[in-house]
Parts: sequence; C-alpha cells; structure tokens
Amino acid sequence: MDLCDKCGNPQIIIKRKQSGQMLCQECFIKAIQEKVLKDIRRQKLVTKGDKVLVALSGGKDSVMVLDILNNLRKRRIIDLVAVTIDEGICGYREDGVDIAAQNTELLGVKHRIISFKDYLGRTLDEIMADSGDRNACTYCGVFRRWILNQVAREEGATKIATGHNLDDETQSIMMNYMEGNIQNLTRIGVKSESSCEGFTVKIKPLREIPERETALYVMARDLPVHLAGCPYARDSFRAKIRDFLQEINQEHPTIMYSTLRGFDKIKPVLKKEFSRQNKLGVCRECGEPAAAELCKACSFRKQWKKE
Amino acid sequence: MDLCDKCGNPQIIIKRKQSGQMLCQECFIKAIQEKVLKDIRRQKLVTKGDKVLVALSGGKDSVMVLDILNNLRKRRIIDLVAVTIDEGICGYREDGVDIAAQNTELLGVKHRIISFKDYLGRTLDEIMADSGDRNACTYCGVFRRWILNQVAREEGATKIATGHNLDDETQSIMMNYMEGNIQNLTRIGVKSESSCEGFTVKIKPLREIPERETALYVMARDLPVHLAGCPYARDSFRAKIRDFLQEINQEHPTIMYSTLRGFDKIKPVLKKEFSRQNKLGVCRECGEPAAAELCKACSFRKQWKKE
Repeated sequence: MDLCDKCGNPQIIIKRKQSGQMLCQECFIKAIQEKVLKDIRRQKLVTKGDKVLVALSGGKDSVMVLDILNNLRKRRIIDLVAVTIDEGICGYREDGVDIAAQNTELLGVKHRIISFKDYLGRTLDEIMADSGDRNACTYCGVFRRWILNQVAREEGATKIATGHNLDDETQSIMMNYMEGNIQNLTRIGVKSESSCEGFTVKIKPLREIPERETALYVMARDLPVHLAGCPYARDSFRAKIRDFLQEINQEHPTIMYSTLRGFDKIKPVLKKEFSRQNKLGVCRECGEPAAAELCKACSFRKQWKKE
Repeated sequence: MDLCDKCGNPQIIIKRKQSGQMLCQECFIKAIQEKVLKDIRRQKLVTKGDKVLVALSGGKDSVMVLDILNNLRKRRIIDLVAVTIDEGICGYREDGVDIAAQNTELLGVKHRIISFKDYLGRTLDEIMADSGDRNACTYCGVFRRWILNQVAREEGATKIATGHNLDDETQSIMMNYMEGNIQNLTRIGVKSESSCEGFTVKIKPLREIPERETALYVMARDLPVHLAGCPYARDSFRAKIRDFLQEINQEHPTIMYSTLRGFDKIKPVLKKEFSRQNKLGVCRECGEPAAAELCKACSFRKQWKKE
C-alpha cells in the first residue's frame, strides 16, 4: 500500500517519477512551499524590505506565486501588490480578472487592475481587428511588459514576480537553442538583471517547479484559478516543443531539470561573450527603457496614430 | 509546370522546402557535390596530400562520403582507403560488407575489411550474449573507434571521414543540450581536434546535408547501399529526438540549420571555458589515446579475461 513518505498518510496525491517520492496533500503543499522559499533564498530573488509586484493573470502559476510570496509578506519580510492586466479579450479575460480579485481578497493583498483600454486607448480585440495578420502575442507581450514596468515604478515596487514554471522555462531555452538565437539565450534566467535605470528586476520563483506540480498545488490548496486558454494563442512552435518535452519526460523524468542545469552553466559564458555592450537607452516618447530611439510599445502606438 | 531551376528540365526530383528550389536529377547531383566540396574547402577538412580513411559501413551516408571524396582522389588532391568494420552481427552485417565492397570496386578504391572476431577475438553477437543488459551501441562504438584509429595509423591515414549528416549532428547537439552534458558539447563539430599524439583527426563532410538529401543522392547516383537497420539499435532517446526534429522540420524547414548555426557560435565559447585542461594520456595496455590509465576498449577486454 502506498503511504506518504513524510507522515505515513495513506491518501497520497503525488508519486514523483523523478525520485519515486510519494506525498499526501498536506506534505505536498509543505514540500512545495519549502522548495520555492528555499529557491528564493538560495538565488537571492528578494531581500528584506522589497516590495514585490506580482503579475497576476489569475492562471494557476501566477496564483501560486502570489500564495507563496504571501508567506513572506505575513512574516513582514516583503510587501506585495498584485497587478492584473486586462488586455480586453472579450469572453476570456473577464473571468481571469474576477478570479485574480478573489485571490487577492482571500489573502488581503492590494490589487490593481489595469486595462489596455485605459492605458493605450484600445483593447487587444480592437488592436487585432486592425492589425492584419500579426500575431496577437507580439502586441500583448510588448504592452503588458511596458505597462507592468510603469506600474511597478508608480507602486514603488522593487521586483516584478511572474509565474513562469519549469516547463515554460525549458521550452524557451529549447526554442532559442533551435532558432540559434544567442541574444535571447543571454536574457533567459531566474532573475533579469538590467543595469538600465527605470527597469524593474523580474524574478521567476517557480522556475524549478514542473507545470504538473503547479496545477496540483493550486488544487491541493483549493485556490480559485482561471483555467481557460487564451483564444489568441497559436504559438505552434512553442506548442510542439511543449508536447515533445512532455512526451520525453514520461521516460526521462529528469530531462527538464538537466536541460535547465546545462543551460545555467552555459548562460554565464554566453553572457560574457555575446551580451550587447551598449546598455538600453530611454524611449524619447515615454521615457521607458528602449533598445532603439522609440521603445516597441511607442512604435506600435505611433502606427495607430498614423492610421 | 515545375521545371529545374538550373536547366529547365521538367523531370525534377527535389523541391527544397527551405528555399523552394527545384532540381532535376543531374543538377541535384552536381549541386550536392559542389556544396560538399565547398564545405570541405571552406572548413579546411582536407589538405593536399592527405590520406583519408573512409569509415565505410555500406549505409547511404558513408557510401556518399566515399563517392564524393573520390572526386578529390581522381584529381590527385588526396589519397583514399575505405575500411569496413565487420562487428559480427549475424544476418545484418554480411550484406553491408558486400555492398561496401561493391562500392570500392566500382570506384577503384582500396578496401579493407576488419572484423571484431579477428581483432578482439569475439564478435559483437558473442559479446552481447555475455553482457547482461548492456547496450550494444556502447561496446560497438568504443571498439569501432579503437580499431579505426589503429588501422588509420597502419595505413598512414591523416584523416578519418565519417558519414554523419545534418540530422545526426543536430540530434547529437539536442541530446547533449537536454542532458546538460557540456563536456560532450565541446567535442561535437565538423572536425575533431585533438592535440593527442596517435589520434587521427576525424572529419564529417556531410554535416550540412539533410538525411533526406543523402538518401536522394545515393538513389540519384544509383549507388549500391545497405538499407537495413541494425538489430541492436534501441537508442530510444535519440529516436525520439529524431522524430521530433523531423516533425518540426515540416513546418520549419530551416530548423536543423539554425540549431547547427547557433551551436557553432556557442561551441567555441564552451570549449574555451569548459574543455578539460588535461590532455588525453596513453593506455598502458594498447598505447592508444585514453582518458584514464586504461582506454575503454582495454577495460572492456580486461573484464572478458577475468570471466
């Protein structure tokens, strides 16, 4: 009979393929929280007095980040603010916003909802109606980062935490290996480090937690989560890599960890050799960090004005 | 109507997905030969006066290498000798040896057939009958390299050419990325460069030719080839990566090239940082290059003697 390895409880909810470890609900929650908090400490993702902005979509990963970081808030190590971006995706985003609000209320964390419509004058649906065949993720990602960075400053946040898990991170690494995109590889990591003024450091506390376990965690904790998929998602290259990694993971349950560990050895060497020497400048329109005269967000917005 | 891009012939045998280029049989053969000879020149794989040992299994890739390098032999730039290793795999290897012999006879190239039985006292079948659950490829690879290196010296060969194609190479790169095996990554390349005495440089003239085109080349040239698969093959990790790359290649027909190009930028940096400083030593039993006191081949052979 299967028993929890920690407490002997016969109601186990996970058998970890990579280690054979079996855990009951309570011990699983505890083990995951300890693992994430240990990763945060070991990698110095936050320091005492930090104010962390959690980018809270309402999906399982961001809800889990908020829930775990809230431990550090309760112990008065950090302060928290949750920000949900309402891109304006009709029939999809409304539920996510509601669920995000339920979670922050449950935990007593300050919550701000920022909409593309208010910030940019257009919803993502409106942008896409005009955009021809462009990929929605391109706009959405650029504007989300642009808004989050500004709101972080407004809030006096010192870090932005996102919900990227082990699967997400391994997919990004593989995509960039396969596209031969060395510049992108130098930027992937648990903590973005930019020496650019006005750029808030981003951290990924769940980078070592498999997707399967983030899903199990929010279920075990009975947290409200938004499970629907974005109607604009059509990133077939990433989806193929995700399917492949999940399949190979069946027989090689440590493969995502070994990919990550290998990459983490390779990355500092690439960074030393290939990182662009020139620092980010400042956008002449909005004052946000920019690689060119105009940042991506302002260059998109300029196109609209012309239309 | 589809016409050959080079000569207008309506009988095209390939439409290249990556470029849209269409070629007839004659122009395809010419284009491939020119591409491989250009890669050899550009990467300085051979120099005038080299004696190249072709590791000739009789499979499509090694037959193609022999056929193309024979152009350089006919122009008296290099000398050639083909070596076929007969591992002693009953019901499989016999045909490969015959086909290898047909090819060398056709081209007038010196051919040596070396058997595990003569060299080691045991066939691979006999080794496997005694080996418990070890993977045959482990033994086979170690002994094949050990024998080829010795025969290369006997023959005065200055290079060993193998048939590795673009698919093989990309698979190896991906496997080692995913296993996080940085030491192996520092050793993958078009040309092995060891400063160790007694170690013959290995070259891969087909490293930039997709597997699909090596198959088409030997068909177009009507060369005899051994198509059977080795009965011991069971490398499921490589097979999974092969299937994944072939699938993704359907929609992203340049993906293997971009993986290779990216790796070729990363590799020199890894080599500088991670290559083991200590040179290979010499095996105290056989005098061949060895990472430890005994080379792998001699350490396997020692186990037999004990049995």
